[in-house]
Amino acid sequence: MGVIDKLVVCGVGLIGGSFALALRRAGMVRRVVGIGRSKESLARAVELGVIDEASADWASALDGADFVLLAPPVGQMDAVMAAMAPHLAPGTVVTDAGSTKRDVIEATYRHLGGHLAYTVPGHPIAGAEKSGVDAAFASLYEGRRVVVTPLPENEPAAILRVREAWEACGAVIHEMPPQEHDRVFAAVSHLPHLLAFGLVHDLAGRANAEQLFSFAAGGFRDFTRIAASHPEMWRDICIANRQALLAELDQYLAELAYMRALLLSGDAARLEQLFSEARHARNEWGEQFANSANPASRSE
Amino acid sequence: MGVIDKLVVCGVGLIGGSFALALRRAGMVRRVVGIGRSKESLARAVELGVIDEASADWASALDGADFVLLAPPVGQMDAVMAAMAPHLAPGTVVTDAGSTKRDVIEATYRHLGGHLAYTVPGHPIAGAEKSGVDAAFASLYEGRRVVVTPLPENEPAAILRVREAWEACGAVIHEMPPQEHDRVFAAVSHLPHLLAFGLVHDLAGRANAEQLFSFAAGGFRDFTRIAASHPEMWRDICIANRQALLAELDQYLAELAYMRALLLSGDAARLEQLFSEARHARNEWGEQFANSANPASRSE
Repeated sequence: MGVIDKLVVCGVGLIGGSFALALRRAGMVRRVVGIGRSKESLARAVELGVIDEASADWASALDGADFVLLAPPVGQMDAVMAAMAPHLAPGTVVTDAGSTKRDVIEATYRHLGGHLAYTVPGHPIAGAEKSGVDAAFASLYEGRRVVVTPLPENEPAAILRVREAWEACGAVIHEMPPQEHDRVFAAVSHLPHLLAFGLVHDLAGRANAEQLFSFAAGGFRDFTRIAASHPEMWRDICIANRQALLAELDQYLAELAYMRALLLSGDAARLEQLFSEARHARNEWGEQFANSANPASRSE
Repeated sequence: MGVIDKLVVCGVGLIGGSFALALRRAGMVRRVVGIGRSKESLARAVELGVIDEASADWASALDGADFVLLAPPVGQMDAVMAAMAPHLAPGTVVTDAGSTKRDVIEATYRHLGGHLAYTVPGHPIAGAEKSGVDAAFASLYEGRRVVVTPLPENEPAAILRVREAWEACGAVIHEMPPQEHDRVFAAVSHLPHLLAFGLVHDLAGRANAEQLFSFAAGGFRDFTRIAASHPEMWRDICIANRQALLAELDQYLAELAYMRALLLSGDAARLEQLFSEARHARNEWGEQFANSANPASRSE
């Protein structure tokens, strides 16, 4: 893969910052320009050496750029694409790090219709306890999965360039259709977040909330850890992917209805069988995940 | 509190074994006798110095005993009480470590009707990643809560003796009615376990289960950790406490119905508000829990 001469990162936080640091470490980039909502955050990114300079406008940022990563909250993707569109030169490769793909792709068709050959949607499956550019680190993507969901209009060379950039970060690339991506992550990420937010919200609204929380222990802590996730980010994800999320929620509601019937009839044998099957699946997955995961990096 | 001359522990695992070790360390017990289903486990408990001797029958175990802790899986409590009843001498204090209280109390009335003055139900809110006597340790209960749910028939002196024994282990005692205990733990412990088992079972049954699990990450890992819990133990708990658990499940289903309506109507503002309230409550609780908890011990 050719070295990127000028990389533009929009949204220089944990995800965008770590991408820049990883490419730098791999010697795959000459110059990194950051652009985003917060001047302070961009100044900090320069200070930390994550980017070489902060750009105040898309015209100068995109001037001579050969690769752009869009890593703002997904709810801002539409405005970002609208703002950058007039300044994109033919051949500049654009990708994104959005947790949902259908909505990002809709925004792409809306605003980057003349640039579809070079706009390749993606989603790195990585994250960490902390967010922001101070939390960025070069090895975040090592051994992590990156899903690329190419458009029919994509140039094969553009897809390849996006794949190679993530591979240079140490990631493992998976290609799949965007609808499939959104269904998979509705099931294993978006639904669990919704369920955890819901349980804490339910209990917090009770008259005896203080008593309930006072007896909550380690199981509750783990189960609800993701209920401390960022509300704006998760609002955007849930709304953007609500079609797939509703389908997952309905399937889960059917599972709960089944368990409710087992409880109501006192069917201990079937309940134990269900628990055993769940434990077996969870233990198998847990071992594989522990062996494959980069311990420094976490979901989502 | 007077020293216990002969302590009988039925079910010498993590919970029962740690109780014996903690009382020993506090100098509060002269002799510990273990009784239980597994001869190997009892032999190991002797080897580890957790108990002084293993007893093969209740007659000899209870001979001269002044304090009994029942710590088998709750599903066995009925059979255990039936077996011990004929051999209980007046004045021997009996307590238990069951995660549910209504069913244990029903078994108490069924089998220990002549011993109600001295049978004081309890529930230590402690546990650890591992179970079994090899996992037992003397400091498990330090700073942990123990709920005592006295019967109207209890002698105040018997309640006091149970409280003092747990206090000698370093625990903090809370008294509450058994119905309240079962409602509180249905909400903060039993329901989350049911929900986690349900999600893993749901996903494991899909045609694309392998693909789904392959993209699950850190959020999924935490959310589903309790789905690796012991199926027999959790079957017993869910069945024993199914009345309170069904009430909690139904309230949670109402919360899910509300969130479903927000998704369906695309109500981003109310969804973000719900997420924000949940995050606020979770963060407040998380800080209190981290400050209060004994890091060596975990739920349930």
